[in-house]
Amino acid sequence: LLRNDRADVLAALDNRHPADFAAWFADQDEETQAHVLKFLDNDWAAQLVEYLPDNEIEDTLLAFSEEKQRAVLTRLQDDDRVDALQELSESTQAKLVALLPARKRRVTRQLLEFPETSAGGRMTTAFATVDESMTVRQAVQELRETHLEKETLSRIYVTDTDGKLIGELRLRDLAFAKRGVLISEIVEPGTPSISAWADQEEAAQMISKYDIMALPVVDDEERIVGIITHDDAIEILEEESTEDIEKAAGISGEISDASYINTPIVTHYQRRVLWVLGLAFTGLLSGYVLMSFQEVLDNAFLLALYMPMIVAAGGNTGGQAATMVIRSLSLGELQSRSTLTVIFRELGVGLLVGTTVAIAMIVEILIFQPEAAADSQIGLPHFALTVGCSLLLQITSSTFIGAALPLVAKSLRLDPAVIASPAITTLVDVSGLLIYFTFARLFLGI
Amino acid sequence: LLRNDRADVLAALDNRHPADFAAWFADQDEETQAHVLKFLDNDWAAQLVEYLPDNEIEDTLLAFSEEKQRAVLTRLQDDDRVDALQELSESTQAKLVALLPARKRRVTRQLLEFPETSAGGRMTTAFATVDESMTVRQAVQELRETHLEKETLSRIYVTDTDGKLIGELRLRDLAFAKRGVLISEIVEPGTPSISAWADQEEAAQMISKYDIMALPVVDDEERIVGIITHDDAIEILEEESTEDIEKAAGISGEISDASYINTPIVTHYQRRVLWVLGLAFTGLLSGYVLMSFQEVLDNAFLLALYMPMIVAAGGNTGGQAATMVIRSLSLGELQSRSTLTVIFRELGVGLLVGTTVAIAMIVEILIFQPEAAADSQIGLPHFALTVGCSLLLQITSSTFIGAALPLVAKSLRLDPAVIASPAITTLVDVSGLLIYFTFARLFLGI
Repeated sequence: LLRNDRADVLAALDNRHPADFAAWFADQDEETQAHVLKFLDNDWAAQLVEYLPDNEIEDTLLAFSEEKQRAVLTRLQDDDRVDALQELSESTQAKLVALLPARKRRVTRQLLEFPETSAGGRMTTAFATVDESMTVRQAVQELRETHLEKETLSRIYVTDTDGKLIGELRLRDLAFAKRGVLISEIVEPGTPSISAWADQEEAAQMISKYDIMALPVVDDEERIVGIITHDDAIEILEEESTEDIEKAAGISGEISDASYINTPIVTHYQRRVLWVLGLAFTGLLSGYVLMSFQEVLDNAFLLALYMPMIVAAGGNTGGQAATMVIRSLSLGELQSRSTLTVIFRELGVGLLVGTTVAIAMIVEILIFQPEAAADSQIGLPHFALTVGCSLLLQITSSTFIGAALPLVAKSLRLDPAVIASPAITTLVDVSGLLIYFTFARLFLGI
Repeated sequence: LLRNDRADVLAALDNRHPADFAAWFADQDEETQAHVLKFLDNDWAAQLVEYLPDNEIEDTLLAFSEEKQRAVLTRLQDDDRVDALQELSESTQAKLVALLPARKRRVTRQLLEFPETSAGGRMTTAFATVDESMTVRQAVQELRETHLEKETLSRIYVTDTDGKLIGELRLRDLAFAKRGVLISEIVEPGTPSISAWADQEEAAQMISKYDIMALPVVDDEERIVGIITHDDAIEILEEESTEDIEKAAGISGEISDASYINTPIVTHYQRRVLWVLGLAFTGLLSGYVLMSFQEVLDNAFLLALYMPMIVAAGGNTGGQAATMVIRSLSLGELQSRSTLTVIFRELGVGLLVGTTVAIAMIVEILIFQPEAAADSQIGLPHFALTVGCSLLLQITSSTFIGAALPLVAKSLRLDPAVIASPAITTLVDVSGLLIYFTFARLFLGI
């Protein structure tokens, strides 16, 4: 596509959105990438870095001359610059930060001190503020002088003389107001805000809950130090959802910005193999239980027919319960005081589902298995009772376990999503076999 | 809390964000709700309806007098009004739409014609446009007159005389520009847009990809007919993620706006029981396979020890593959031409994981099972080979199945997420038993 000279490259870029260009760029081989980079002007280079997947950022930045690195990093918004720098090795990061002009260098170092996943680590400092004691005329004058540096003017934050956040304005309120009015007369108070040390997920949930453009971030003295914008919120929520979904399937490790196709097969392998191996060895437990009840199975092989189904019903219902609870926790719907409520509700759902499936299977057995039971020399009603009771207990206990384990993890300050469905399945495989064979011994006298 | 008179209710509301008030309201019993509703003025009532969970909207609207219904619905933004009306029964919907003033009634009826999940069904028509032939002065004058009705002025869309979208402006560009300049001189062309008939998920993905505030929605003649805003994008993406997560765990039915705790136990039961029942009856297939290989198991009961592990390894790896593919599809990362690539990659990952687990288990068997094999009168190397080959084939084929089924579903225009992990697990349970017992017959001569 882009293989000729500078003019061609720039002409091809002219009609592209930087997001599209970055996605295209990430898909190219190294040679093409190097070729394209040579021809990018500083503005395009900065836009490329802004939209590039995390794993491409270091190589791309290092391909530039020192002069161009400085130009690119200076052009980026504070939050985009910090996001990019967070992907680099410490030494590269220090080297690149040192290239920045003094004021940006200071701000960048401050922002890099916040944990990457905190509100402070995500915020931009390019927000607009005006003082409540200004008139509309003074405020417009101030914004006119500084607006080019601001990420958004849709919301203008109003502070008192100590820099404390006291409310907000919309640019339209200023644009259409009388020039002599005081800002304090038109400010809208009650702007939600978040501490710089809070988790980024909390910030994203607030932006989602209040349907706002941007959320002010405040320091310990309630002074506004930055804002988190709606596009950050989308990115954070998407990342968290992907992480939850992947963890629930037993896929470990940090998710990367790279798409499925751009991730090397070896990385996919590494993220999956440990869970599979661990679960395989844990799965031997089920095997030992099965072996130790060999006698029961030998005496009534009809039991084998219902065994996989009873075991799997536990995995299915446990996985459902875990999924519901983990998602509710992710969406911020559950307070810690709701723990008991959730457990009682899930016990209720488990009992209902368990009863339904147990009755369905009892009916199935009574209709279809009279001959098989006679062949195996076991009483049909006793056999039906064995299967029914096992299902009820297995489903109820699995639902309970599926709901309780993420809540326990949460109360131990672990990520609830690490209690992945496969782990619950492996656990309730064992309990299912124990329940089934115990009832079989009890009711069938084997 | 709020049990006294009008003044108390309004005073208590004064410091609350409507989103917090709506969340609190949804948690109250009917009596308290009725009491609070009596005292709400029209503005608060409209804000309540805007932020209320879907399942509370009908009861709340019907509790108002006709006069208040009209006032509330008129005050809502077009998109919020349509979102609320979409939750009502058809007759209630028609009755309430008829209450609206003529112009809003017409717009609302038009919007209700779009499918609820299309871009047209989600958009608001309260967007700002100016004509490219205007001067900045004329544009500011026009916006000044109409700005109160607009949902956002952060982006102002520029059209030609036919109403075709040709670009956008920011309010700041107008606010700080010279008054005599023509709009056509300062317009930024290349604004992304979406067809009103496209799926809302596509719109949300574009907003996420381009980091934009709002996405213009155009009709078949490329005339701008609405916008979808960033807060809608967050809501859509959250809904889609929740739906994918729930479907992957075998939880069916439409997700509701109600939180986990506010959803009745019976609803939770209904959303889970069908899958569990269906899977239970499908699970009997595994039982029949197990019964039909009874002889093999009788002759070498050591096989039972590794059976649950081999079967489960298929479910785990199949679930991982399905999760990766479904999430990639949801994030819009996979084009249809990538289908074969994905399948080859997953085959590769499956082979790698399968080889690793097979080797680990072969080593385990050679170290720990010499005695048990001798007791069962089967050759240790042959037994290790049986387990190893079964694991390799089971894991590779399950990974393939897990990746392929969602892609097949997609190509049949079904939702890939309906190929839930439990369904894949149940399927590969059967294949796992067949694979294991076939290799046992082959290598152990049983």
